Amino acid sequence: MKKDFKVIGFDADDTLWLNETYYREGEKDFYKLLADFGTPKLLAKELLKTEIQNLKLYGYGAKSFMLSMVETAMRVSENSIDNTGIEGIIHLGKDLINRPIVLLDGVKEVLEKFYDAGYKMIVVTKGDLLDQERKLANSKLEKYFHHIEIVSDKQEHNYQKLLSHLEIAPEDFLMIGNSLKSDIIPVVNIGGYGVYVPCKDQWEYEKVANVDGLKNYWEIKQISDLGDLMEI
Amino acid sequence: MKKDFKVIGFDADDTLWLNETYYREGEKDFYKLLADFGTPKLLAKELLKTEIQNLKLYGYGAKSFMLSMVETAMRVSENSIDNTGIEGIIHLGKDLINRPIVLLDGVKEVLEKFYDAGYKMIVVTKGDLLDQERKLANSKLEKYFHHIEIVSDKQEHNYQKLLSHLEIAPEDFLMIGNSLKSDIIPVVNIGGYGVYVPCKDQWEYEKVANVDGLKNYWEIKQISDLGDLMEI
Repeated sequence: MKKDFKVIGFDADDTLWLNETYYREGEKDFYKLLADFGTPKLLAKELLKTEIQNLKLYGYGAKSFMLSMVETAMRVSENSIDNTGIEGIIHLGKDLINRPIVLLDGVKEVLEKFYDAGYKMIVVTKGDLLDQERKLANSKLEKYFHHIEIVSDKQEHNYQKLLSHLEIAPEDFLMIGNSLKSDIIPVVNIGGYGVYVPCKDQWEYEKVANVDGLKNYWEIKQISDLGDLMEI
Repeated sequence: MKKDFKVIGFDADDTLWLNETYYREGEKDFYKLLADFGTPKLLAKELLKTEIQNLKLYGYGAKSFMLSMVETAMRVSENSIDNTGIEGIIHLGKDLINRPIVLLDGVKEVLEKFYDAGYKMIVVTKGDLLDQERKLANSKLEKYFHHIEIVSDKQEHNYQKLLSHLEIAPEDFLMIGNSLKSDIIPVVNIGGYGVYVPCKDQWEYEKVANVDGLKNYWEIKQISDLGDLMEI
């Protein structure tokens, strides 16, 4: 595999640290709060519908999730949810923001290895900046990264904007992440490189069916395999 | 005044376009929705209290404002606000996000002048990235700016991080904005330069009492005076 990248971008949530697991737990708490108004299956479907409807307006992150839960709760309860329920949602969301940072296996060692090898590394994330800065500070990984890049979405034009801001060519950029849809496919499509590290608990919205014929990307089982893949 | 800046940062809301006026209108709508539970004065005090309490957790922007309004509504109504009220808040917040972009007087002309003079200009904002990207796209000012920098707050350490990311020294940075507290004082304190352009409808939280003895900053009445000030 090619090694001479000018910048390596790392997705944050579920690439560096645990995140989706917390969201899945948050969703389960939401289903419990609303148990009178529907089965978990129905509530999941309704919540996802609200989230996708609001995506263009709210973007990603915990606050969007909270607002979409409030809206879903009112809709599925036909406006009969009481303030205790709404308070439960707010509380659940604040808890989610405050969850401890748990690094994924091998993350620190890989970052250290690549840092020592002289790579310029950045975090590329579509979450809330405040959230991501807090997580990065708590993760103790700050020293390995040049800076955080927040993108409003992870589509081709967002990566193109990012590359022009970084003032590098696509072939000088490698992106590492747990979402084919957000971290790999758009980067490879504009001429960059990708390493896909699947995680458990993938968000329904991030799932894609088909990557047949996609070039310049590799899949590894865990991030600690990155050193071997790139022979570093 | 010194002219050889490598980067000029512009605050976005209320420096480039109207924003606080919309928030003040949103607050008034909120007071109307909650008229049964308190006077505008009391509601304003309670809302500001909630916003400041949540600032560390939520950061700035429309979604934070919405979540703080929901929380305030439940508190001041002693949990008697009904779903119509909560829906009203969500609706009001979505409206706020969708307000049209109205450029402040002279903004386009000044940006054009500085762009033609070869300055590298960026937007520096603590709002939501998605919101700010949407506003910038709608403003038709995108072409003048190298990129948008989203900062989680505008304190000295945030500007220090920004400068190290831009790889420039403080004295090569000029920041232009409508908040002494957020745009001018922290920049000047770390060795940069500031131009303060006051706006109407300042948010209570952004007000400061005293800038006696502060150096390397200038105050102008409107952004169109920037060319004269810098003799450009």
